[in-house]
Amino acid sequence: MTAPADRLTLVLGGARSGKSAHAEGLVAALPPPWTYIATAQAFDAEMRERIAEHRRRRDARWATLEAPLDLAGALAAAQGPVLVDCLTLWLTNLMLAEVDRDAAFAALEAALDAAPRPVVLVSNEVGLGIVPDNALARAFRDEAGRLNQRLARRAERVLFLVAGLPMVVK
Amino acid sequence: MTAPADRLTLVLGGARSGKSAHAEGLVAALPPPWTYIATAQAFDAEMRERIAEHRRRRDARWATLEAPLDLAGALAAAQGPVLVDCLTLWLTNLMLAEVDRDAAFAALEAALDAAPRPVVLVSNEVGLGIVPDNALARAFRDEAGRLNQRLARRAERVLFLVAGLPMVVK
Amino acid sequence: MTAPADRLTLVLGGARSGKSAHAEGLVAALPPPWTYIATAQAFDAEMRERIAEHRRRRDARWATLEAPLDLAGALAAAQGPVLVDCLTLWLTNLMLAEVDRDAAFAALEAALDAAPRPVVLVSNEVGLGIVPDNALARAFRDEAGRLNQRLARRAERVLFLVAGLPMVVK
Repeated sequence: MTAPADRLTLVLGGARSGKSAHAEGLVAALPPPWTYIATAQAFDAEMRERIAEHRRRRDARWATLEAPLDLAGALAAAQGPVLVDCLTLWLTNLMLAEVDRDAAFAALEAALDAAPRPVVLVSNEVGLGIVPDNALARAFRDEAGRLNQRLARRAERVLFLVAGLPMVVK
Repeated sequence: MTAPADRLTLVLGGARSGKSAHAEGLVAALPPPWTYIATAQAFDAEMRERIAEHRRRRDARWATLEAPLDLAGALAAAQGPVLVDCLTLWLTNLMLAEVDRDAAFAALEAALDAAPRPVVLVSNEVGLGIVPDNALARAFRDEAGRLNQRLARRAERVLFLVAGLPMVVK
Repeated sequence: MTAPADRLTLVLGGARSGKSAHAEGLVAALPPPWTYIATAQAFDAEMRERIAEHRRRRDARWATLEAPLDLAGALAAAQGPVLVDCLTLWLTNLMLAEVDRDAAFAALEAALDAAPRPVVLVSNEVGLGIVPDNALARAFRDEAGRLNQRLARRAERVLFLVAGLPMVVK
């Protein structure tokens, strides 16, 4: 679906919209080896189960790099086509660790520009509900929206997943 | 809009996106009689008013079946083209009644495969906001997302309603 | 992007989806002067900062009219192509002031029909998350959905913004 010419693909969607599975399919349509960059941190049982489920879906041709914060470093270390899953958790980690987001976003963009390989980024759309009650959630969705916009501008291909099906945004 | 060749149509969208009205239009474009399968249970005044509003919109050529849980049974009993409104409330009912969802989803799929008539399913997209605070709401949106994906895979036609207007997903 | 023939354009999207910037670009593609109708009321520091940020983006060819409630009056007073940003805040203001919404919506529609100029309306899609806990938020998203549907029906062009990129709904 993604032609090899697409250096950067952004796969957006809601929770359980099939983003990860679709993005894995895009990467696995290219020749292996593939690198899976996981940004998730397993804080609790619910998250551990989600990570385990994602891992069960991938076979041995996938190398996994864990990058809760240093996504730019992981991109530099990757081999072959790369899947980054997902930017929303990465942003959460940056905010919890009180890392400067503008610097981190710029470092990510520089790493994407330097990457000699196709990269598929997975990110959540979180801004389509009612305004959240608490200020932290509002700040999070603002930053997530800004990050998605920056990466969508840079991507050759942007998909919006609905019920497991891709709508082509760009 | 839906050609008679579309045996299964899935109409997705947010709250007040015009899903029900659009889906009714799709069914009513086919020859009557039509069957409306209502999954809503009127627990309170707010829900009673919503049900009454939907009912006022439909004329006498519609037969109504109430199916808060046994959607497969209602599909087997239906006459003519069918509208199921909606899957999200059906899932809520299944969860409240602690019915096994995998079995219920499989029974629904079998009933859809067996139905000798066009079926239009209405379902909510609920995963595009901030992660909900409580675990039950998170579990609900996970299950709703999985159900939508299963049915979208099976449907010939998937529409995403925005402000009353359909975007063609499939 | 919007041809001058489009008298009414509705730009929908989530928080931080790039709605305002895109809508400004549509208006600024037409000959100046342009009128910006701001519906925001600066109740707190967070909102003041948002308003200031939007204002910094616009140059001197924009006249600004503030219309927290009387949108129809502001449309009648406007010069040149008009941007209304945004309907969601206007609806919030109507609800807080306990203004009759049906009358206000009808007055807005009459003003749009009478306006001898292109108008671009910005509005939020807020119905794609989990059902909100509180009744006021549910009422708000119902009314916002109804307003969006009414205006989408009337608009020549409806866009759904995702990560800063427009999807054409109509």
